[in-house]
Parts: sequence; C-alpha cells; structure tokens
Amino acid sequence: MSQQPAQGPAPVRLITAFGSPFAHRVEVALTLKGVAYELLVEDLTNKSELLLAHNPVHQSVPVLLHGDRAICESLVIVEYVDEVFHDDGDGSAPRLLPADPYERATARFWADFIANKCLKPLWQAMWTDGEEQARLARETKESLWVLDAQLEGKRFFGGDALGFVDLAACTLAHWLGVLEEIAGVRVMKDGEYPALRRWATEYTSDEVVRRSLPDRDELIAYFTKNKERYRSFMVKAAAVQ
Amino acid sequence: MSQQPAQGPAPVRLITAFGSPFAHRVEVALTLKGVAYELLVEDLTNKSELLLAHNPVHQSVPVLLHGDRAICESLVIVEYVDEVFHDDGDGSAPRLLPADPYERATARFWADFIANKCLKPLWQAMWTDGEEQARLARETKESLWVLDAQLEGKRFFGGDALGFVDLAACTLAHWLGVLEEIAGVRVMKDGEYPALRRWATEYTSDEVVRRSLPDRDELIAYFTKNKERYRSFMVKAAAVQ
Repeated sequence: MSQQPAQGPAPVRLITAFGSPFAHRVEVALTLKGVAYELLVEDLTNKSELLLAHNPVHQSVPVLLHGDRAICESLVIVEYVDEVFHDDGDGSAPRLLPADPYERATARFWADFIANKCLKPLWQAMWTDGEEQARLARETKESLWVLDAQLEGKRFFGGDALGFVDLAACTLAHWLGVLEEIAGVRVMKDGEYPALRRWATEYTSDEVVRRSLPDRDELIAYFTKNKERYRSFMVKAAAVQ
Repeated sequence: MSQQPAQGPAPVRLITAFGSPFAHRVEVALTLKGVAYELLVEDLTNKSELLLAHNPVHQSVPVLLHGDRAICESLVIVEYVDEVFHDDGDGSAPRLLPADPYERATARFWADFIANKCLKPLWQAMWTDGEEQARLARETKESLWVLDAQLEGKRFFGGDALGFVDLAACTLAHWLGVLEEIAGVRVMKDGEYPALRRWATEYTSDEVVRRSLPDRDELIAYFTKNKERYRSFMVKAAAVQ
C-alpha cells in the first residue's frame, strides 16, 4: 500500500450575498447534511475576484468552494451536496433527493416547473407594469394552482421531510410577500392556495431553515433599494423580445 | 421468502413527435443503454389522450412510459434512464453522466447553460425580426463562444465518449443549420466556432445518433410548415414582456 499524506476533509466555503433565495437553498442543504462551512458574503455591486474567478460564466452567487473545486448554480450545488455528503449508513445525513429513480425524476420535474413556470413569470411580473404585468401575474397564478395541487395531503413536496423541491420553491415561502409588497402586485390573495400557504408556514418554521432566512425588514430595504435596477433590466429585456 | 409472481422487465415506450430534438435526446439515451423500446409518434396538432394523460402539465413530448410510470422533460428522462438502466458490472451500458459527483455537477451546469443561454435565445432569434432578432442572435453567438471553449481538445463535452451534455446540445449539431436556413438568420458563420463544428460532425457521425436523426429535407419541410405558428407565439410573448 502506498502511503497517503495525512489530511482532513476539504474545507467547504459558500460565496453568497444578502437576500439571495438561491444562496439560501445551499445554506439549508449544507446544514441539513451536517456540513460545516464558511460563508463568504459578496457585495453584488462590487463583485470580488474570488467570485469572478470561480463563476466566470454567470458571475452570480451562490458558488460552493469544496477544497479546490468550485460548483455553480444553486440546484446543481444542492445535488452535489446531496451526492458528496451522503449518509454513510449511520442515518445522520438525510437525503435531499429521494433514493428511488422515479421519485428523483419527479423531484427534478417539479424543480424545473418551479423555476420556469412559477419563479420566472413571478419575477418578471414584479418589475413590469400594466397589461404586461397583469398577464405575467395570471401566468404565475395558474402555475401556483398546479403546484398547490401537488402539496395536497403532504407536509412537504416530497412527503414528511424537507427536501430538494422545497428548496427549489423557497422563494414562494419567504420572499414572495416581500416582493408583492414592494412591487404592489399580489399573486397570492387571501384564501387562495391553501396547501401552498400551509407549506410556506411549515417551511419557514423549520429550525434549520430559519437559521438561513434573511430578516423580513432587511429584505424589504434591500429590494426597495434595488427596485429601479430590476425594472431597468426588464425594460432592456422587453426592448429585445 | 415470499413468492413473487413471474414477470419480465417493464415495457418501455416513448411518446415522441417528428423533428423534436428533445425526443431525439431520449431515443439516443435509450439506444446507448441498450434498452428496447417502442416509439409512439404523436401528431402535435392533434394530441392523443395518452400524451395528455401522462404529461398534463406541459402536454409536450417526449414522455417516457416505463411500465406504469410516466416521466416527462427530456433531460429529466435522460437522467432517469441513466440511473435505472445502469451498468450491472458487465461493462455493457455506458454512463451518460459521469460517476464522479463534481463531474456530474459540471455536466448539469453545462446542460443548464445550453438550455438557457444558447437554445432559448437561439429559438427566439429564429422567429422574430429586426433589432430584436439581431440582439438575440448576438446573445446566442456570445454563449456559443463560451461553449466552443469548453470543447477545445475534446471529442465530446465529457471527453472521449458521448454523454449527457452532448444530448443536451444536440440541437446545435443537426437542427441549427435547418433553422438558420428557414429563418434567414445565421448565428454560426463560416470559420466561426471551430470546436463546436468539429463536435457537430463527430456527433452526427455517431452510429447510434444517426439512427435517431430526422432527415434534413423533412425537417426543412416540417419547420417551414410551422414557421408562422412559431412566429405568432413570439408576437404573443413579446406583447406581454
């Protein structure tokens, strides 16, 4: 046998930024898995060399640094964390994606639905006006009803335990009300989406989740400060579509 | 031990439609894995009850029917096929995603980049006009250079063997030229993207891939027939963005 140099586990660092639901997903995943990590908080108006070097393509957070490896895109990171920090048989680390391949495929399907059919039109609706805004809000609301039906009779999307799809949907649990307040648009009105509302309460009550949820007042201040920047992005995008 | 009823493997059927690069991804994945399957070809202008029942959310192809399970969304299906029809140790079934978690994450990252930063603006550029079209074509071209750099010195995206990212990018290998011809827009001009061009030749020359590539002339006829429909979708989308 060849001798290996003694070494500990590779350090885990997470490049994040205040208020990011995408970074929140990874923080919760790491904590659920029992992984110790260091947070490196970015100022997105003045991005660090570290961020630009490790995510040159998107230049966005979160980025997971695991030893000398960098992993980008929040749900890609969550799957990586799930696969690398797996349960070695002592039952300590929960699975974020189910073990069964069909259930895994179902989880990936809903994560994709949430990204493309819920969060995307929701975000666009928040920073536009008039008929455009009304149409995007309607599109979001239709998708939220589909999602609501998925939660009927279940505590979390995957059943009793918090997992991958809950992390994919986190914006709907904690950020949505803040965005609605700032943009003056409501997509989740009183009495609507009973299953999603129950789920949001479960999600934001979870002890691990709560440790990584940004303060609501600070979120309001953050998004208020950036509102005009988001709106100008939408105007630019609309000009070319 | 309890007695199990004798039964063969669950039958595999693929709901597809002529000309779909998304269905092509799954056909190639199944063939590479050595899975026998039945093709159920849809007429997308008159969708079957089978399709609507098994993909009620998106009502689109491909849908994989594996026994009584239905799996939707092409890259979700490819991952499912990779996980379910795995190599049992006899070396017969290749891995579509790499075994190493970091390399798997890297493959998922590039598949996401191809979907959102290459194929999406490419498709929009094809069915719009004027300044909108020029801007979307520029966005596509910038992303294609990023992708081109990934292929330098490699036969396929994952190395020597065809895998997940190649399937994710298949539109660029076989469909792009057809779309450019019909829409009258060129994003890949002579002399540009040398690595992507070499890869496209490798991909479309692969024996398994070729069995599932639609005939070029038939593709031209198909997209020509549907051109005005695609353009009207873009006008509707632009009216709300």
